[in-house]
Amino acid sequence: MGEFMTAARHHPSEAPERRRPIGDPSAPIDGHEASVILERARELVDPVLRAAIESLPGSMRRIALYHFGWEHADGTPAAGHAGKAIRPALVLAAATALGGPEARTAAVRAAAAVELVHNFSLLHDDVMDRDTTRRHRPTAWTVFGDADAILAGDALQALALRTLAEDPHPASGTAAARLAGCVVELCAGQHTDVALEGQSPGEVTLDEVLGMAEAKTGALLGCACALGALYAGAPEGDVEALDAFGREAGLAFQLIDDVIGIWGDPARTGKPAGADLAARKKSLPVVAALASGTPAAARLADLYAAPRTQEDLDRTALAVEQAGGRDWAQVQAADRMARALGHLARAVPEPEAAGGLLALAEYVTRRSS
Amino acid sequence: MGEFMTAARHHPSEAPERRRPIGDPSAPIDGHEASVILERARELVDPVLRAAIESLPGSMRRIALYHFGWEHADGTPAAGHAGKAIRPALVLAAATALGGPEARTAAVRAAAAVELVHNFSLLHDDVMDRDTTRRHRPTAWTVFGDADAILAGDALQALALRTLAEDPHPASGTAAARLAGCVVELCAGQHTDVALEGQSPGEVTLDEVLGMAEAKTGALLGCACALGALYAGAPEGDVEALDAFGREAGLAFQLIDDVIGIWGDPARTGKPAGADLAARKKSLPVVAALASGTPAAARLADLYAAPRTQEDLDRTALAVEQAGGRDWAQVQAADRMARALGHLARAVPEPEAAGGLLALAEYVTRRSS
Repeated sequence: MGEFMTAARHHPSEAPERRRPIGDPSAPIDGHEASVILERARELVDPVLRAAIESLPGSMRRIALYHFGWEHADGTPAAGHAGKAIRPALVLAAATALGGPEARTAAVRAAAAVELVHNFSLLHDDVMDRDTTRRHRPTAWTVFGDADAILAGDALQALALRTLAEDPHPASGTAAARLAGCVVELCAGQHTDVALEGQSPGEVTLDEVLGMAEAKTGALLGCACALGALYAGAPEGDVEALDAFGREAGLAFQLIDDVIGIWGDPARTGKPAGADLAARKKSLPVVAALASGTPAAARLADLYAAPRTQEDLDRTALAVEQAGGRDWAQVQAADRMARALGHLARAVPEPEAAGGLLALAEYVTRRSS
Repeated sequence: MGEFMTAARHHPSEAPERRRPIGDPSAPIDGHEASVILERARELVDPVLRAAIESLPGSMRRIALYHFGWEHADGTPAAGHAGKAIRPALVLAAATALGGPEARTAAVRAAAAVELVHNFSLLHDDVMDRDTTRRHRPTAWTVFGDADAILAGDALQALALRTLAEDPHPASGTAAARLAGCVVELCAGQHTDVALEGQSPGEVTLDEVLGMAEAKTGALLGCACALGALYAGAPEGDVEALDAFGREAGLAFQLIDDVIGIWGDPARTGKPAGADLAARKKSLPVVAALASGTPAAARLADLYAAPRTQEDLDRTALAVEQAGGRDWAQVQAADRMARALGHLARAVPEPEAAGGLLALAEYVTRRSS
């Protein structure tokens, strides 16, 4: 935790070169605890997730098993696994922080439900964004077609809500209502994302892209933490504090994700270099760079109008960096994380109890892929 | 009810011309009771439905309001209304049949939830099927684009489950689980529909299309009736009987809908004449006709390979009729309805209590548009 706490304590106005940059692949990695937490979450949640997916009718089961990396396109078993399990790990860590090991065990279905919602949104977003690669593999719509990818996503949303509705835990109804509300927010965020795609970068404001990032990423991370708190029987104020913690951590996560989307190593991200720039995504560093009023911003605006060759993409990435977009994103990430920690401290004042959540928050803002 | 009961009592092997044909537009219309039931359901459910949709963020609210016919594409208010409310009316009629007026009042949110799921599936199906007209208006995807129509559908599914999850009624959790399970079945049905589109008509069996019709249409009508029973506090056996009633009535409904899709009056259906034939839909009368082994079946197979002109479509419709597809569908509808009534009688033996459900079942198999 030390690395991150140091970074978070810096004031955003300090010169960037004096900060220990969050998300910097060269930073020393101390993610051991987080990786253990993620691994344990995966072990607990996978059987519930898998049982839910096995309950699907054959056609859609096949698409879902492919999407989760459990089967190849031809239906033979695959060894891959379904992402990093950050969201289910947050559910379980929040439950543990507020209710101990018993709450953690009780919250496994809620953790699976959150992961199902996450994967529903990935399936649909990939169709809309025409993204062709996800987790180093061809996206489901490229393999099975648009209709089947849409239907498999629809079925995963239904499975998520059914998993909660069938849970006899007293918090399951409140949790289901909250998760359904979060789905609406995810949709609103994706709507903004699609709408902004059609606009020129100069028309887009930082507030718009920050609002979109909160809806697309912050909302579900916040909901994951809130569901953990609900399953721990926490009072309303603590549930809201955990939601706010997850939202701010989610924004930090998105800021770092956008940095990785431009400067990350393709071998680790599973996406082609500069993919976000090639798609002319209004990512947070790009919009911040365009709004900077620097000479590099003007150069970037010209380049961003129609980047084509790999060389153009490299020059675009450099212009974003020179206009301060990369530094801004990293300072913002630190700032958001500081706010997240403030919310967490309100609900979970004891550092030992908050340990799992802190480790996960640090992990998502330090990862290099 | 007399008209329908007479038809249902006929054995399918009787000569078609001796039956009073179900779904025949020339049959005397006695739908007064059903139309009053539907109108009352609409009055009760619309405020809940509208409140749920008004809770959506602006962008998706607009798409949903357009889809429901409450707004024009430019956002100005529209007087149209959102379909016939058959599914919410079934929820309320089932609740009344098993629990009286109090259960009916309690079940209004469940009725709205079922209508939201129905409209989620319409939005998505129209995208996948590239259907351009719905309820006499351009479909949402033609107005707002694929992405927004998909997102609005996603949001309606979430609203449906949230509406139930927020309902303090003791049956709401069980109802939500059942409705979510039904969504999975709807998706499986649509998957089959899309898959069959890619096959030649001769490859498709009647069992396949009947299974698809049960999943796409029967499942939600069954679920509507089951939710009404759950909200009436009915025992498990009665809930299942009501589900079976709705499923069989739904199959009868689909059979008649397919007949109307070929021979219905475009001015009343809101679809171009022969639209289902032009789209080469594997509708039930067509598949039955192709399987008939008659000379007309061979002619139909040739015509169905690539119908193009209006004259071709007229000849195709005639071949379906001559091969017995129309009569088969009407006999099947009567048979399904007889089974539906058997299931209903198990759970609701008193005809007075069953009146609303019977009127609705008759209505859906007698309508001419």
